[in-house]
Amino acid sequence: MPGLLDTKGFHFYSLKFAIAVMAEMLGVLVFAFYSSSSPSEYAAWANGLSLAVAVYITANISGGHLNPAVTVATVCTGHISLLKAGAYIAAQIVGAILAHLIQCGLVPDANIGNPVGARGIFFPKPGVTKGMAFGFEVIITFVLVSCVYAVAIGKPHFGNVGPLAIGLALWASDFAAGPYTGGAANPARVLGPAIVFNSKWQYAWVYVLAQLAGGLLSAAFSFPLYGLGADWARLWD
Amino acid sequence: MPGLLDTKGFHFYSLKFAIAVMAEMLGVLVFAFYSSSSPSEYAAWANGLSLAVAVYITANISGGHLNPAVTVATVCTGHISLLKAGAYIAAQIVGAILAHLIQCGLVPDANIGNPVGARGIFFPKPGVTKGMAFGFEVIITFVLVSCVYAVAIGKPHFGNVGPLAIGLALWASDFAAGPYTGGAANPARVLGPAIVFNSKWQYAWVYVLAQLAGGLLSAAFSFPLYGLGADWARLWD
Amino acid sequence: MPGLLDTKGFHFYSLKFAIAVMAEMLGVLVFAFYSSSSPSEYAAWANGLSLAVAVYITANISGGHLNPAVTVATVCTGHISLLKAGAYIAAQIVGAILAHLIQCGLVPDANIGNPVGARGIFFPKPGVTKGMAFGFEVIITFVLVSCVYAVAIGKPHFGNVGPLAIGLALWASDFAAGPYTGGAANPARVLGPAIVFNSKWQYAWVYVLAQLAGGLLSAAFSFPLYGLGADWARLWD
Amino acid sequence: MPGLLDTKGFHFYSLKFAIAVMAEMLGVLVFAFYSSSSPSEYAAWANGLSLAVAVYITANISGGHLNPAVTVATVCTGHISLLKAGAYIAAQIVGAILAHLIQCGLVPDANIGNPVGARGIFFPKPGVTKGMAFGFEVIITFVLVSCVYAVAIGKPHFGNVGPLAIGLALWASDFAAGPYTGGAANPARVLGPAIVFNSKWQYAWVYVLAQLAGGLLSAAFSFPLYGLGADWARLWD
Repeated sequence: MPGLLDTKGFHFYSLKFAIAVMAEMLGVLVFAFYSSSSPSEYAAWANGLSLAVAVYITANISGGHLNPAVTVATVCTGHISLLKAGAYIAAQIVGAILAHLIQCGLVPDANIGNPVGARGIFFPKPGVTKGMAFGFEVIITFVLVSCVYAVAIGKPHFGNVGPLAIGLALWASDFAAGPYTGGAANPARVLGPAIVFNSKWQYAWVYVLAQLAGGLLSAAFSFPLYGLGADWARLWD
Repeated sequence: MPGLLDTKGFHFYSLKFAIAVMAEMLGVLVFAFYSSSSPSEYAAWANGLSLAVAVYITANISGGHLNPAVTVATVCTGHISLLKAGAYIAAQIVGAILAHLIQCGLVPDANIGNPVGARGIFFPKPGVTKGMAFGFEVIITFVLVSCVYAVAIGKPHFGNVGPLAIGLALWASDFAAGPYTGGAANPARVLGPAIVFNSKWQYAWVYVLAQLAGGLLSAAFSFPLYGLGADWARLWD
Repeated sequence: MPGLLDTKGFHFYSLKFAIAVMAEMLGVLVFAFYSSSSPSEYAAWANGLSLAVAVYITANISGGHLNPAVTVATVCTGHISLLKAGAYIAAQIVGAILAHLIQCGLVPDANIGNPVGARGIFFPKPGVTKGMAFGFEVIITFVLVSCVYAVAIGKPHFGNVGPLAIGLALWASDFAAGPYTGGAANPARVLGPAIVFNSKWQYAWVYVLAQLAGGLLSAAFSFPLYGLGADWARLWD
Repeated sequence: MPGLLDTKGFHFYSLKFAIAVMAEMLGVLVFAFYSSSSPSEYAAWANGLSLAVAVYITANISGGHLNPAVTVATVCTGHISLLKAGAYIAAQIVGAILAHLIQCGLVPDANIGNPVGARGIFFPKPGVTKGMAFGFEVIITFVLVSCVYAVAIGKPHFGNVGPLAIGLALWASDFAAGPYTGGAANPARVLGPAIVFNSKWQYAWVYVLAQLAGGLLSAAFSFPLYGLGADWARLWD
């Protein structure tokens, strides 16, 4: 089985874990760079397809989390230890920051610290309140993380098609939420451009809280369905 | 094998069946919410992809019916007992109603009981008679349910790719029928918005009858091809 | 293994073969109806996705040929007997004719024998000569049939993903050839609307000859790669 | 396992290797012809889908490289011998040249040696410097080749879905890089049209160097992850 969500193959103090952390960083870098550099009318396509590809590349190296909401959920269901999760989340956010720094070098009108010409910033579209944005992001993160659980941990799992199904979950989510919130479903993707372009901080916390809530809701559903993993309440392993 | 259409793992009086009913409700909720919130020009994409994702999430929990036409067909071919089927269909319709109630909270211009600004309502496009709409919905529901049978019950079945193929069946159907009927192929998706927005009841019964006819037609083809399931003519199990 | 191209499970005089012939007819009916009813700007999507779905539905029943060019090629490489092939090709053409007859009932502006408002007719776009159209159709039929051979008969074959890959082959072909020939790659899809709407016969023979040539070219490549099937030069079996 | 990247089944002096070289040539021919003949607004779709299809067709024959950047990377990681790699790369470039020569015969406004009406030529879009184009092409080639390694050589590999994932990698890359460089990620696709239409040579070397750098970067990551292949530093085998 390809190793979706699997972090058992390496200990916290090991070269393999260092490589896994680097894979999470590079995976989010690619995913965030691709998603935010694409034309906005094809954002749903670019988000979904680039997530599928990044998960295919990293699944056997780091388990292909690539999303702090996934990592927080899997800490709660015992599929990753606390310290590993902390390192993963830090790497995911650093990856997103690097993606937008590279963008400032490669995209003509993107500049560090300048919201004008910035790419990948999330904010509610006109007429959408913070509460509505919160609701949309809870739902789509719940769907995304639930799909991750279903294809990776469900018995039987969905094997080789898993990363594709995860990409389709984001793709579908972005058709639904794109016209209202932009369809992030990933705290790293919100924090990366907010930090690099120093923009829309008043909305960033709404998105991040909603996404964590969506991930935790999915973890709560996962527990009765799939049980707890071996790393439950472990500081490290 | 992932459990498409499989309802043998739980008895009617069991926690597992209660979870399965809840999965059907949440699965249709997600599918209906995603499909109807997306921009109308990408409805075919959103319908097909979100159905694939919802089936991936629920396949191993409830069998991933998510459609009263599927459930009615599988009652007739003995793949689910009568009482379970009744609970599934009720859960599917409740899920669709909840999807549109949530939509009234999250989408700026959608309001309960108000057809103006409503989302997801199905009706024949200009120039399309009720008879034409009936024909289109019979055909696309027949194709959708036939695809479900082929990938889930055919020998050999199509394993991990099954939910994707089911999503593609709706996606393709919505390119064909979208310009004429909107491409529903699912009574829950018709009844949910009709109830919440109290609109287009004069067409809803045409759609629902056509979809049940399409599902039954598919069940009639399934019998000689794949035989009857163990639950044939069972009230419960 | 799902039975792509597999016709060994039934004899010529058997109920199973009669069912297989009916599956070919219904499969082409669905494929041709879907492809030609969809909006022309999404023809590539509709063609590719509906072919994938029709092959998923029919693969285990008839082998999922759904295309006279595939059947002619597989006769030459010994994967189907001559009489079976003849019955398949007749069923495929009848399926396409029925698709467009049904269309005349369900689509407001389509009428039998009337090219005005007709759907699904293939002809070279402005500036494209018959020779150019011939070349395009040879190439895309060669690619489509080669993909069928590769995923179904190649060792190892591509299992559950085969029908999807075949759909992608037509989808990709229609991006390339769509602006020049419409991208048919299937004699049944050319003959069906030409017969029903009595239109563009001056181009139909160019398309059909090119498609047969593309299929035969693919069969010529298949022989050294994958060898001959058990039905080579058999009248029936 | 379908034979992605696998070149062990044939010796350098063998009919099988000659067939493999021909498969690389025809595979790139189809891929380059399809990608460059499609309408430019759907270039990302056509590129990604036609690459997936070409890899499905050639995977079991030649290993489905279809890209000098893949072949150069796999030489460095020992998955193909030097002489075989040289023959593959020559065949890939010849395939791309043939694709555009055929295009000059089949597409009304394409002519040999004439940049006006030419198809498939890559150059930076307005405002994009050579340095920016270099950066984009390094990144997308790195992602494409890394996906090839992950699905083909990673343990466990991704089996039947591998060619699809490779196609998705290019599809996603072309949403990101398309508006800036056109999204080539393949030296053969750059050199083919540059030679046939004798155009944009001032950019071609930037693209090719960037793509080779991206491939080598991916090979450098592959070595610690997946180890070296049996052909490492072999002149032939």
